[in-house]
Amino acid sequence: MNKKSYKIKNISIIGAGNVSTRLSIILQKKKYNILQVYSRTQKSAEKLSNLIKCANITDLKKLSNEVDLYIICVKDDVINKVVEKIKNKNIPIIHTSGSTDINELKDFNTRGVFYPLQSFNKKIHVSFEEIPICLESNNKKFLQELTLMAKKISNSVQELNSQQRQFLHISAVFASNFTNHMVSISESILIENNIDSEIIKPLLFHTMNKLNNHQATICQTGPAIRNDKKVIKGHMKLLEKNPEIQKIYLEISKSIYNYENKEL
Amino acid sequence: MNKKSYKIKNISIIGAGNVSTRLSIILQKKKYNILQVYSRTQKSAEKLSNLIKCANITDLKKLSNEVDLYIICVKDDVINKVVEKIKNKNIPIIHTSGSTDINELKDFNTRGVFYPLQSFNKKIHVSFEEIPICLESNNKKFLQELTLMAKKISNSVQELNSQQRQFLHISAVFASNFTNHMVSISESILIENNIDSEIIKPLLFHTMNKLNNHQATICQTGPAIRNDKKVIKGHMKLLEKNPEIQKIYLEISKSIYNYENKEL
Repeated sequence: MNKKSYKIKNISIIGAGNVSTRLSIILQKKKYNILQVYSRTQKSAEKLSNLIKCANITDLKKLSNEVDLYIICVKDDVINKVVEKIKNKNIPIIHTSGSTDINELKDFNTRGVFYPLQSFNKKIHVSFEEIPICLESNNKKFLQELTLMAKKISNSVQELNSQQRQFLHISAVFASNFTNHMVSISESILIENNIDSEIIKPLLFHTMNKLNNHQATICQTGPAIRNDKKVIKGHMKLLEKNPEIQKIYLEISKSIYNYENKEL
Repeated sequence: MNKKSYKIKNISIIGAGNVSTRLSIILQKKKYNILQVYSRTQKSAEKLSNLIKCANITDLKKLSNEVDLYIICVKDDVINKVVEKIKNKNIPIIHTSGSTDINELKDFNTRGVFYPLQSFNKKIHVSFEEIPICLESNNKKFLQELTLMAKKISNSVQELNSQQRQFLHISAVFASNFTNHMVSISESILIENNIDSEIIKPLLFHTMNKLNNHQATICQTGPAIRNDKKVIKGHMKLLEKNPEIQKIYLEISKSIYNYENKEL
């Protein structure tokens, strides 16, 4: 296959979860033609195909040979199974995963990654424009066409190699999942002690607003960075009944203190 | 001393750091009369007294006997030293600490706590109105007068006992200092891998905005809550060079998974 250019127009979507739903809708809005949607189950395949008015399939053998692009939007650990089952290795293909190497698509002549850095949730709306999209490809011209597609839906598009993207994914886990968990723990401590958990919100949003204009390390306050041993010891004692939370409290406090001494 | 009521008008401020500065300014705006400011050093005592135009002292023996209230705004671990040195135990006294028991003021007839739940920073402005103020006192009438004072400067005033306040303080450490540290780690991973750290901001703010209307536990996403062992293992491998971050990654991931299984 010696395509000179990679005009993307007709697309098959593989997967029918949160990412494929959001991505199909926005691509269709931007005049891309979603021809078919694959899902393992008839029910979810139909649900998405009804939504965007296209064909649905539950057998990867039925993937069209006439499209310009396959987009894989399935869970990370089934990407390799999906890849194995696709017959036509000449169709350009991309996956949308943060933590999967582009080499998982190595059997395909033209391959790429199209990773939207966001946590998608069926219940909560998110505007694609603000979502950074990270691209990678083995083919320069195909990358140009992917860049065109990405820029139609997002204001923030950049190229990252697979290792960088995997570190970005770790970094997203810290900034999103782990910050969220800190707030979970905070709220559960309040609830256990009969304190309205809303009380913590102004402090939380003040903390986040500071991060809008400052590096996080500079914004740090609290007993750990001051190495306020008396307060830390008191907190550890109060958390005695919950050894797991106590362990996290101590590890993060140590890390805050070490960061201060390493970096400032 | 058998005061029937506790009209607060004239105040001595003990301490000249962030909390005392912010509090003095706002109290003065609300027509309270700050008579004198104490600090260990002449320099910082003068700085604050010049700002709010009042007397300054560096000797606690010179505290006025004619005021209605002493407000202690010093570091937690020197509160007891300050308390020992104050001669007149008949003047009503409050401290502003989240983690100090009201009983540290037990030598005083009329005592209280006035804890503004916020991380104060000289560089970053914060509006007092949105800061929750937590009150405690050994005297009902004095508590009423403290409530009046608190409501003049904040829209969110509530009574909490010393143990609740200490748990609130722990919860603030999780919601503010620990979330901030998660973002620090996230940014440092990006910088180490030559990725613009701004890329993480939209995800971070999306995560925080969700928390405006939802409980944190419900908002959780990511590999840990899905128990996505392959991704977690991959992340652990990529973090091998940094055992401290690796340890935090694993502990928090475990905790997220356990929370999911305990609470939902």
